Amino acid sequence: MKKGLLIVISGASGTGKGTVCKELLTREAGIAYSVSATSRAPREGEMDGREYYFRTREAFEAMIAAGEFLEYADVYGNYYGTPLAPIEERRAAGEDILLEIDTQGALNVMERCPDGTFIFLLPPSLEELQRRITGRGTESEESLARRLAAARDEIQLGKRYRYAVLNDTVEAATDRIQTILAAERLRADMDPEQFEI
Amino acid sequence: MKKGLLIVISGASGTGKGTVCKELLTREAGIAYSVSATSRAPREGEMDGREYYFRTREAFEAMIAAGEFLEYADVYGNYYGTPLAPIEERRAAGEDILLEIDTQGALNVMERCPDGTFIFLLPPSLEELQRRITGRGTESEESLARRLAAARDEIQLGKRYRYAVLNDTVEAATDRIQTILAAERLRADMDPEQFEI
Repeated sequence: MKKGLLIVISGASGTGKGTVCKELLTREAGIAYSVSATSRAPREGEMDGREYYFRTREAFEAMIAAGEFLEYADVYGNYYGTPLAPIEERRAAGEDILLEIDTQGALNVMERCPDGTFIFLLPPSLEELQRRITGRGTESEESLARRLAAARDEIQLGKRYRYAVLNDTVEAATDRIQTILAAERLRADMDPEQFEI
Repeated sequence: MKKGLLIVISGASGTGKGTVCKELLTREAGIAYSVSATSRAPREGEMDGREYYFRTREAFEAMIAAGEFLEYADVYGNYYGTPLAPIEERRAAGEDILLEIDTQGALNVMERCPDGTFIFLLPPSLEELQRRITGRGTESEESLARRLAAARDEIQLGKRYRYAVLNDTVEAATDRIQTILAAERLRADMDPEQFEI
């Protein structure tokens, strides 16, 4: 049985991870989106097991203690994390799993799952990054400048990923990601049985 | 400046490396073929620097002593080797270099150049491998059986490569290799400057 890929799409804040992942899932129906767990309360319309696995802080902490997360973080008092077991099970069954995750999370996943496919999304330019961050239009100038500087620092982390994909347009970025996935499906370690002839 | 790839195409005896490499070079004119050095005498029509760099045993041994080879081997009393310097220079200038090499040589290259693109060619089946080895038609049955067993052992080495490509037809195998190369050109480490925005 050929093993499925763990596709990790990451990038600095404002580089358009979400839009690219959505386009990829539309094009490749066989890829499953990894559902995260969180300790925050569900919002209107959110369903347990679809947007998130909703867990109490206590239940989440028990999962941490049991080593059940591929990575997790405490964001403004709420836990977010990626349960490892469902990912491993689905990959063993040959299914590709997509993880859309911030840079800190991705670096943690690299430690636990070095055989993942780590893709860093690059904004086309500093100006475009600025435009995308400003575009949300809800922050002070100081806050925006701070976010832009943080994003530039974060882009340096891209060097630690295997692949870097320019997100100039959603279509072109998704084309590049599909090329990467086609190649990764030819990795020797995804199908050890093929050497037994 | 984007760094060029070191493309290493390898595989067991009789898997059709030569034909696939030729097809790849026809399709991608930008890829340069790495010329080996040898201590054997030139044959009719062979030209120094085209088929091989022809060197005396003494000159070849001086190059070994100076650490000038990416890999080398003594085959039935003749040296064959891959000079490292021209490969590094051309990669630094952005050129992709193709190395067609046996499995022992490829494993040595992995040590010296871990950032190479290591592709292992798989024969479509044991029967086909048998047919290809028998096809040369110049050997005893015993010698053929020995070569077939050696080829099966050699195929196990494919697990150590990053990519495995089935050589069912030259066209399909070359398509797969081109997909791999397109993805490898998106590797983060091939273009570190893209993270300085």
